[in-house]
Amino acid sequence: MIKIAISGLGKVGIEFIKILKEKRKESKEKYGIKYKVVAAVGSQWGIVKDEGIELDLLLTGKYGSELIKSTGLAKEEYRGIYGIMRTKADVLIEASPTVIEDGGAALDHLKEAIKKKMDIITLAKGPLVLAFDELMEGCRLNKKSFKFSGTTAAALPTIDIGEGSLAGCEIKSIVGILNGTTNYILSKMMDEERSFETCLQEAIEAGIAEKNHHLDTSGFDTACKILILAKALMGSKKQLGDIIIKGIEDVTLQNVFNAKESNGTIKLIGRAYRLDGDIQIEVAPVELSSEHLLAQVNYKNKGILFDTDLMGEIAAIGGKSDPRGAAAAAFKDLINIYRK
Amino acid sequence: MIKIAISGLGKVGIEFIKILKEKRKESKEKYGIKYKVVAAVGSQWGIVKDEGIELDLLLTGKYGSELIKSTGLAKEEYRGIYGIMRTKADVLIEASPTVIEDGGAALDHLKEAIKKKMDIITLAKGPLVLAFDELMEGCRLNKKSFKFSGTTAAALPTIDIGEGSLAGCEIKSIVGILNGTTNYILSKMMDEERSFETCLQEAIEAGIAEKNHHLDTSGFDTACKILILAKALMGSKKQLGDIIIKGIEDVTLQNVFNAKESNGTIKLIGRAYRLDGDIQIEVAPVELSSEHLLAQVNYKNKGILFDTDLMGEIAAIGGKSDPRGAAAAAFKDLINIYRK
Repeated sequence: MIKIAISGLGKVGIEFIKILKEKRKESKEKYGIKYKVVAAVGSQWGIVKDEGIELDLLLTGKYGSELIKSTGLAKEEYRGIYGIMRTKADVLIEASPTVIEDGGAALDHLKEAIKKKMDIITLAKGPLVLAFDELMEGCRLNKKSFKFSGTTAAALPTIDIGEGSLAGCEIKSIVGILNGTTNYILSKMMDEERSFETCLQEAIEAGIAEKNHHLDTSGFDTACKILILAKALMGSKKQLGDIIIKGIEDVTLQNVFNAKESNGTIKLIGRAYRLDGDIQIEVAPVELSSEHLLAQVNYKNKGILFDTDLMGEIAAIGGKSDPRGAAAAAFKDLINIYRK
Repeated sequence: MIKIAISGLGKVGIEFIKILKEKRKESKEKYGIKYKVVAAVGSQWGIVKDEGIELDLLLTGKYGSELIKSTGLAKEEYRGIYGIMRTKADVLIEASPTVIEDGGAALDHLKEAIKKKMDIITLAKGPLVLAFDELMEGCRLNKKSFKFSGTTAAALPTIDIGEGSLAGCEIKSIVGILNGTTNYILSKMMDEERSFETCLQEAIEAGIAEKNHHLDTSGFDTACKILILAKALMGSKKQLGDIIIKGIEDVTLQNVFNAKESNGTIKLIGRAYRLDGDIQIEVAPVELSSEHLLAQVNYKNKGILFDTDLMGEIAAIGGKSDPRGAAAAAFKDLINIYRK
């Protein structure tokens, strides 16, 4: 019986709980895995219950600490890291909000989980961007797993293709369309021949872009993701500050017309590639020819292209780009850690 | 030290030996794997040498039993299955020619390897098409690995995406462009608006299609591959005879014009999908719309599209479609069995 602790019951955390509920029978029959949730913590309240928390109590339509409190099982003294300190869980699912500046509470949670020799599955990018090597080494010394499939492109497989499907290859470069919001805006600009501002505005109205869209449109989110990929799959030691980041705010209608004239398309590309014994990482809008394997990755779709020594070019495209997709990536990590 | 036996030193087997030679250092440093080849068998001659065979002896430009004999280490009494019976290898790499009718010598080799409790990596499709359940069960009872990444689309990852990257998902359908020769011919027909016969002839002259092209053009090769995928990833119990197979011989220029008029493209598709509690498998030329994730898989490229319950649609495209690509897939399997 795998004992799960979950930190963060926002949209992704709740979807993860839903999947745990839906897939209980299949997990047992197909993978030999039984599980229970023994801790659920938010920033204000937490539950620690070794016998397991009835999942339906966490599926009432509420979110976060409000949800946790509403179960009647919560204590303030079990909030955040204090709940993680108290639980006897085997694995921590870290799904609290991403804070890039200092890794936020998530980074503290992961360090505590390492101290307690737990397996770790994180959906939060911040800790990886800031402390990848330290976290990886901590889990390695513990002989525990450290998984983060949900951090780079929601449900689209990236890390496990790089690690498993390309095992034995040298990855020469990784090229990714890793941010759904910017890809949506660019696809719209290409198809409708309208300006960045107009397409951004409509994306905000459609609920696809956030009002505070700068993390996406500036290329910063893409930079975090390609950095994580470069660290995990190419051994990069670069930091966020080393990356030249150009967003899509300055893409003009003239750029769109030029791309169309040469039968191409504009994509926001995160790219990591080997150069002179180093690994270069950059983010910028790039014109792709119509034959490029990622040229057809449109609107909210994502895509990644690996170039390898033994296997040539391999692309993966698609995967749900929503909270359920990200939660499914964390669930996959759980299965892959414990499957028999 | 992993002791490898290899059966079949044709083009793929030789590429596998080359990769073993090139990747010796990296395998040790990155994956903690050391290996030696302790047996190499062909249909007429075989080598069994517990101390390991110098790889350069197998890289002289010759092939098959002629090569094996030329090393000066070979004995006739170690040919084929007799060599496998004698070796103390941990793993068998089965790379002898595919014979679909009865599985050929490859099937006997795999059964012998199971008897000897070896791990198995096969590049031969025949045994999988004929005896998938028996082989899988044999390895499972032995608690040994049974890997066959190279059988379905050379270097393009298919099995490990389905098993690993989509773990926890129900695969609702698999759609694949799995045969490079037919995809090349169809791409040429679409681009050049010329007949099947003409494009086939040019593909033969270019060395892309074989003179004996029927296994490819009839859809039979695609059928074997989608059957293996359906068995491995969807639990299908179907046999080859259950599949409705339509090849590309009857695709006309009129079909090409019709597809172009509706802005689509024609692809030879192998498809497995759930229907009324059963799994349907079929092979046929299909018109894909230009937005289909596999529509841009052209010429010798291959592609596969999974539809899943949790993650939506995920496609993988590309991967070297040559002996080196297939050998790299087998090398990946080796790494994934033994990596630390």
